[in-house]
Amino acid sequence: MDHALGLARRGLGNTWPNPAVGCVIVKDGRVIGRGWTQPGGRPHAEVHALIQAGAAAYGATAYVTLEPCAHHGRTPPCAAALVRAGISRVVTAITDPDPRVSGRGIDLLREAGIEVVEGVRAHEARELQRGFLTRMTAGRPMLTLKLASSFDGRIATASGDSQWITGEAARRHVHALRMSHDAVMVGGGTARADRPALNVRGMGCLRQPVRIVVSAGELPELPPEGPDHGPLWQITGEPGVIMAQLGSRGITRVFCEGGGVLAASLLRAGLVDQLVGYTAGVVLGGDARPGFGSLELARLADAARFRLVETRRIGPDVMHRWLRD
Amino acid sequence: MDHALGLARRGLGNTWPNPAVGCVIVKDGRVIGRGWTQPGGRPHAEVHALIQAGAAAYGATAYVTLEPCAHHGRTPPCAAALVRAGISRVVTAITDPDPRVSGRGIDLLREAGIEVVEGVRAHEARELQRGFLTRMTAGRPMLTLKLASSFDGRIATASGDSQWITGEAARRHVHALRMSHDAVMVGGGTARADRPALNVRGMGCLRQPVRIVVSAGELPELPPEGPDHGPLWQITGEPGVIMAQLGSRGITRVFCEGGGVLAASLLRAGLVDQLVGYTAGVVLGGDARPGFGSLELARLADAARFRLVETRRIGPDVMHRWLRD
Repeated sequence: MDHALGLARRGLGNTWPNPAVGCVIVKDGRVIGRGWTQPGGRPHAEVHALIQAGAAAYGATAYVTLEPCAHHGRTPPCAAALVRAGISRVVTAITDPDPRVSGRGIDLLREAGIEVVEGVRAHEARELQRGFLTRMTAGRPMLTLKLASSFDGRIATASGDSQWITGEAARRHVHALRMSHDAVMVGGGTARADRPALNVRGMGCLRQPVRIVVSAGELPELPPEGPDHGPLWQITGEPGVIMAQLGSRGITRVFCEGGGVLAASLLRAGLVDQLVGYTAGVVLGGDARPGFGSLELARLADAARFRLVETRRIGPDVMHRWLRD
Repeated sequence: MDHALGLARRGLGNTWPNPAVGCVIVKDGRVIGRGWTQPGGRPHAEVHALIQAGAAAYGATAYVTLEPCAHHGRTPPCAAALVRAGISRVVTAITDPDPRVSGRGIDLLREAGIEVVEGVRAHEARELQRGFLTRMTAGRPMLTLKLASSFDGRIATASGDSQWITGEAARRHVHALRMSHDAVMVGGGTARADRPALNVRGMGCLRQPVRIVVSAGELPELPPEGPDHGPLWQITGEPGVIMAQLGSRGITRVFCEGGGVLAASLLRAGLVDQLVGYTAGVVLGGDARPGFGSLELARLADAARFRLVETRRIGPDVMHRWLRD
């Protein structure tokens, strides 16, 4: 299942509105098929792996990170494909909350006489599928907030000098994170001040993330959609409404890169699921530009707490990643 | 030598104005004596280790983190003690910059027919002895600056609520750092607002750090010196002058815990050698209290860069430690 989760991770950012699923087919202790959801959401992971396994799939075990689908969507149901291939045992991590599936994939397999084991590595799978699950259960995408700052949380000097606080390795890591999200979001002020490219560079990205600018005002000229730039969506409104709109358009994972006012409004609305910080070994002082706008917290207890999931050195900087439980 | 460096580390904060030295005596591949500078600076590490080794020291090798002393201070010279014990080989990490020693300890050993190997683990030893070396070469102690802050570098809400941003494990780690420094320093504002204890609790500390309050104004009543509290020194003046004064009083390692104005003035004067950050998974916003006062940096290139030497999880928080090269 760890191997299947690793394969699933390859699809993050590429498969929306579908979930990024991984599948490994094993027979006599040997891997005979591996698959993950392909860019755009199809073929599904199971079909990909079954094609690789061919006739050898007969009597084999399939490890799938999400319950196989049971409905005819753009592709025929994967549960039926597993039955047809003669798979004798299916191991899954989590049940699909999609009302068109939710348990029916499992039922279909069991009715066909396939042994099904559920809940293996469920915690890891839930973390990996958080975007898809949040969209299914809360109707909005998962939101990651990035802050690349000085030791004292500043993103530029008072005069606006910000290039570069963190090193090249951290900036490359940001591109990898953009690639694993469906959309990259900034506020109008940032769009006007920095004219950011909001794309993934130097990583062989197949499906550029959607560029979202949250602004009621006029935007500067930004590159048109093309192989190097995703669609450009300008939206405006309350944070909760914006996120619901993105959910209804199929977006499951949003990567917000500022500015501080937008970041603060998302935090205040309780919409932030993940924080990613890059901290550099430089102090810019209390007069330098802060990474967040005003939150008007009276008490410390009113602030949301995030759980540390990862910290490590990236080039000369420290990267730390936190999740809201 | 790694073992000797580990022993030396035990003395940090306890040996001022003397250096914290470690010594391991090895014969036939077996450790027969271990020593480190004792609280208050004597006995020296070598003497401590030689007593343990006894007559077996004859023909043995001594690993010492700093060149053995050659002068009669409060104790007889260690170089002579090594000769007298019949040590046949001495391995050292760095030469003592103290003008009363500086190479003469090595000469004394070589003149007595002892083989001397110099410069083993010199880089690590210089980092460990940085306080002692800075006092010898620059006439001031090494300075560590601590910041325990939110994800966005804030130390309290706008209303002043600060207990607690970081967890208990990070606060315990702060006590361990206090213990490894000769003195703990705060500004007058912090002393008046928080009446901090500035002592080491729950760690069996033998020699409490000196409490330094940088302020020209009146101080609140703070606990008198005793077994649980070090001497209280109130000082005032330019940062460079203050640090030189502390150096002349024998202090080799200072741990500054704020406030932001004092921290900024020390940074501006280029007196900060080490940064230690504790970052919590909570965002307090741009209206919350910053950890540093104004630095008035026009360009990013004007800010001092620190090199990351350590980062890890401590309880729910991230700890990161940086050195100025």
